[in-house]
Amino acid sequence: MSSAWLLPEHIADVLPSQARRIEELRRELLDMARSYGCELVIPPLLEHLDSLLSGTGSGSEIKLFKLVDQLSGRSLGLRADTTPQVARIDAHLLNRQGVTRLCYCGPVAHTRPDGLNTSREPLQFGVEVYGHAGLEADLEVQDLALDALRRAGLAGVMLDLGDARLLQGVLDGVKLSVERLEALTAALAAKDMAVLATLTADMPATTRDALLTLPSLFGGREVLTEAARRLPDHPLIKAALADLDWLAGHLTAVHPEVRLGFDLADLQGYAYYTGIRFAAFAAGCSDAVLRGGRYDEVGAVFGRRRPAVGFSLDLKTLVTLVPATPLRAAVRAPWGEDASLRQAVRALREQGETVVCVLPGHEHEADEFDCDRELVREHADWVVRAL
Amino acid sequence: MSSAWLLPEHIADVLPSQARRIEELRRELLDMARSYGCELVIPPLLEHLDSLLSGTGSGSEIKLFKLVDQLSGRSLGLRADTTPQVARIDAHLLNRQGVTRLCYCGPVAHTRPDGLNTSREPLQFGVEVYGHAGLEADLEVQDLALDALRRAGLAGVMLDLGDARLLQGVLDGVKLSVERLEALTAALAAKDMAVLATLTADMPATTRDALLTLPSLFGGREVLTEAARRLPDHPLIKAALADLDWLAGHLTAVHPEVRLGFDLADLQGYAYYTGIRFAAFAAGCSDAVLRGGRYDEVGAVFGRRRPAVGFSLDLKTLVTLVPATPLRAAVRAPWGEDASLRQAVRALREQGETVVCVLPGHEHEADEFDCDRELVREHADWVVRAL
Repeated sequence: MSSAWLLPEHIADVLPSQARRIEELRRELLDMARSYGCELVIPPLLEHLDSLLSGTGSGSEIKLFKLVDQLSGRSLGLRADTTPQVARIDAHLLNRQGVTRLCYCGPVAHTRPDGLNTSREPLQFGVEVYGHAGLEADLEVQDLALDALRRAGLAGVMLDLGDARLLQGVLDGVKLSVERLEALTAALAAKDMAVLATLTADMPATTRDALLTLPSLFGGREVLTEAARRLPDHPLIKAALADLDWLAGHLTAVHPEVRLGFDLADLQGYAYYTGIRFAAFAAGCSDAVLRGGRYDEVGAVFGRRRPAVGFSLDLKTLVTLVPATPLRAAVRAPWGEDASLRQAVRALREQGETVVCVLPGHEHEADEFDCDRELVREHADWVVRAL
Repeated sequence: MSSAWLLPEHIADVLPSQARRIEELRRELLDMARSYGCELVIPPLLEHLDSLLSGTGSGSEIKLFKLVDQLSGRSLGLRADTTPQVARIDAHLLNRQGVTRLCYCGPVAHTRPDGLNTSREPLQFGVEVYGHAGLEADLEVQDLALDALRRAGLAGVMLDLGDARLLQGVLDGVKLSVERLEALTAALAAKDMAVLATLTADMPATTRDALLTLPSLFGGREVLTEAARRLPDHPLIKAALADLDWLAGHLTAVHPEVRLGFDLADLQGYAYYTGIRFAAFAAGCSDAVLRGGRYDEVGAVFGRRRPAVGFSLDLKTLVTLVPATPLRAAVRAPWGEDASLRQAVRALREQGETVVCVLPGHEHEADEFDCDRELVREHADWVVRAL
């Protein structure tokens, strides 16, 4: 049992200084979501495996921890993502006709880490807006995402925008196997021109040219104009470019501190998103801090095909990127059975102060809390005095 | 896929009205713990199976969901209780000499429900104080537990106290197998005199008489006097009764609204607790809302035998027993591209208001939030007007 304290790889305890900051961020983000009219839901950690795998695209099964339900003998999964669960809640439990705004915050578990220094137990915060197909919902969710990152104190935010309809438009009329489509989106995301040339060799010239053009379409808002000029004249492409431009205008006006970028070949989550997708990056961090977009099909397997747009982020990652906050200084108090002392301690705690009672025999230990005041007796009264 | 929305038995989503109250309670309890000087920790959901089973007493293995770690091939467990994890953190990660106060709040999972209407996914909140063997730590933890329940608005609280040392004293010098001890504590807890008579038939007369006396020792503080008269004169029994009396005096003085009870035969968790144990009950609820006590051995398997006292409760149970709080009324706002409107909405949200923007085409839907005001244009300005 000598190694009973060792944790599995990519799984770690969160110790006090970081846990406190995560709890602060959790509250700030949930309060921000509430101010937008989002209602909190708490889906379970465990569900039937087939529910968790519903409509989440390929690659998600391998991320799921599987277990057996002793009560039913059925296979359960430990959730790797909260989005399908929230779609299920919207579709079946709430079953409302109108716009529904939901948010959540809780742990998820991955069988394999996403990156070298990534936890297999992210603490996922997210927002989903159901029931509105128009761009106004995309803008609302992006506004909320950027407000949340600003409130968290994240500096140098860059928002990267794309749209799944661009590839849909380019590939319109071309039949591709799922494997070929996956290879194609991977090559586009990696801007691997050699692989792209091979994969598109037997395609119609217009399609091939467009696919070979996409990797060069990245940069600022000017990319949209260039794309309109160089990509085929297709209604899906036109709509996507017009929508991206409209969003860029509004986002720039309200979040002038955020740098906007467009990478029209980056189709990460292509199987999942159906329209605009976005990702936020922080200065000096190569992985996205936050990802989101429109995925109107997400509720379909639950029997309800509602428009849906949302985003999620990992609080355990975010906390490493934002400034620490100082621990509020505490009051040190002696321990005693005296009723007036005990009353004075209670009164301070009710005012929101942290009061650390020094238990008998521990008078010479270091304070784990930074105590800048102490409770002392002056004649008949207990008073707080600076240390 | 028609049943993709069905959840496993004893597993449920928490919908908005209850989720909001749980989040409020979570913050109140964590803030209360912080005011006592407790530091928050976030242990992982998954650990190596042998770590989770360390020193938790029999019966805990059957509660653990087991899975396989694809990275290592080793068996993992999904935590069924946070206490052993926090003991591990105290013993290994913090490794402090002095008093350490920790708190936590997160989900745990049980393979089988504890009761007919119990969730297999409690949301466990708890507090642990390490490093002080004296009764002052027991009192501090009980004070905190009762303050937390009062803050949550729980009415008619009864605190039930007992002590594992009573049975240790009674059985001193009597050798019993683990199975017999378990049968004995179960018969004592059930006050099953017939079974007790059989189990104690071959024991020394003093021991047998004491064991047959224990089930009648329940009631108010007068039980302690009666126990001193009727139980054997043993140092462990004397210490336990004196400690219970001292605690009762302090708890009555500070929490006059809480009814104190003593049930000296109730030895639930005997394998776990080493001294005072306590449980809080609410009016009209047969299961304990909160359980705690002293378990000085809990860190031993991690190589560090520190004094420890703590408690835990399930927020999903607590929320069903406390009054609901009203949802703060929101402001309804029209949707529009106008910069002054968007600025007015942002300003209200920054003041902490919930502003629900009515997306185009959804003007006639019911508000999910109770909107008691609306944002309207008056000449050049946007103003909030009562609805």
